[in-house]
Amino acid sequence: MKVFVIGVGLIGGSFAIDIKAAFNEAEIYGVDKNEEHLDKALSLGFVDKKSSFEELDKADVVITSIPVDITVKLLPEILDKINDECLVFDVGSTKKKLCNSVNDHPKRRNYLAAHPIAGTEFSGPQAAIANLYRGKTNIICEVEKTAFKLQERGMEIFTRLGMRIRYMDPASHDKHIAYVSHLSHISSFMLGKTVIEKEKNERDIFDMAGSGFASTVRLAKSSPEMWAPIFKHNKENVVETLTEYIANLTQFKELMEEDNFVEIYKEMEDTNHIKTILKGIS
Amino acid sequence: MKVFVIGVGLIGGSFAIDIKAAFNEAEIYGVDKNEEHLDKALSLGFVDKKSSFEELDKADVVITSIPVDITVKLLPEILDKINDECLVFDVGSTKKKLCNSVNDHPKRRNYLAAHPIAGTEFSGPQAAIANLYRGKTNIICEVEKTAFKLQERGMEIFTRLGMRIRYMDPASHDKHIAYVSHLSHISSFMLGKTVIEKEKNERDIFDMAGSGFASTVRLAKSSPEMWAPIFKHNKENVVETLTEYIANLTQFKELMEEDNFVEIYKEMEDTNHIKTILKGIS
Repeated sequence: MKVFVIGVGLIGGSFAIDIKAAFNEAEIYGVDKNEEHLDKALSLGFVDKKSSFEELDKADVVITSIPVDITVKLLPEILDKINDECLVFDVGSTKKKLCNSVNDHPKRRNYLAAHPIAGTEFSGPQAAIANLYRGKTNIICEVEKTAFKLQERGMEIFTRLGMRIRYMDPASHDKHIAYVSHLSHISSFMLGKTVIEKEKNERDIFDMAGSGFASTVRLAKSSPEMWAPIFKHNKENVVETLTEYIANLTQFKELMEEDNFVEIYKEMEDTNHIKTILKGIS
Repeated sequence: MKVFVIGVGLIGGSFAIDIKAAFNEAEIYGVDKNEEHLDKALSLGFVDKKSSFEELDKADVVITSIPVDITVKLLPEILDKINDECLVFDVGSTKKKLCNSVNDHPKRRNYLAAHPIAGTEFSGPQAAIANLYRGKTNIICEVEKTAFKLQERGMEIFTRLGMRIRYMDPASHDKHIAYVSHLSHISSFMLGKTVIEKEKNERDIFDMAGSGFASTVRLAKSSPEMWAPIFKHNKENVVETLTEYIANLTQFKELMEEDNFVEIYKEMEDTNHIKTILKGIS
């Protein structure tokens, strides 16, 4: 099985590591515009051969793990170049624009729209890790538009990697994921910004910040190259979540200004049941 | 050494566990208005005897680990009851109101204002853990107002528990901690609220949320009993941080509405150096 990984960073690299472990016959072909990343992936051993778009006709599976705006641009070209029996899946955090972009492509049936809910705040080939996908949810959109045989090939990979599958339409995916993922990244980035702006002497932050701050600001380490296009793709939903988040923060601030700490207590108590909701999320 | 722990929850209980381990001669006396918590602390073994305010004259060390508004009320009474050689320290997340409240107390020299930057999102005696304080920063305010011999006793405890000491005036403490701790809690609580409000079907959140969401929303599990009084005590500083945080979020939203994703990329890139700042924070 010849697997082409386009973008050999955290996400693509972690797929390569697990696929090599789960499929004896897998050969990983790395494609990346960043030559240093390709060399690093080769030396780390999860890519077997450097490759390019010119060789895509040899592929049995193509994984695109690159920023969503680049995927939208390249996906039609990738579908043009593959053979009829090849499965292409992406891993992007937005799905609507991607699905729309290939809706009328003659090889639409070769494409599976996927979003594995997995990652870390790190990026690049050196961030790739084994078992990143074990026990994680993989959201598949418009599964009915993918050829049945190729759905099966995708599922075989996802199952061997230990993922749970969930089916959803692209619009619902983008709406829900804005709340449980995209908003978290913005809240974290802006928290980091607010604190950095205030505390020019960085030793002060370092000394006084505990694990709580580290936890809320962790996502502010994420790659802008990956995230700016996600916000762009999902603009409408993300703006809506931001509007609601800002309204809630403003109301909290007003309660404080009015010395209404009884209501503030209640707000926190009401939100505490997030404990139960979160049970089981690593 | 007779150590009275007033409030046998996460923070007080964790002190009790480590002090018992570090000082052979330590006896822990538990005081708590919640009788069930006291029984639990006894059965967990980190409290040796149930006690009360009436026995405070026997204490060599008193630790108050209760909500800050209750500490402010009880601290003068505790100082009234202790003997002249006893050290009292608190662990509260605000310091100005506390220091002011005992500034003119005849036993001011028996009190050490402390804030160990340590904790988890859990609470109660069953949340107490060993080594919670190892490697953590302990901020001491107005150290010069504590009798030298009692400073030494406090330092002996903090040192054996593995803490790093930092000295600061109460006003600076409250200002800085608003940014690196209090704001994180509000951002997390309001993030939880925003998502819960939107996603009435909680399975949707559960299935789609990954470790990033779990991380940013973790502090929304915190105890309102502990946190509402902290926000009340530190109102002015917390309102200031909230104003700045809301302004940054609003600007981010406006950039999105204007499709200025170049600037959004830059915002994130500028904040990315939080990586370096956070290095070393667990």
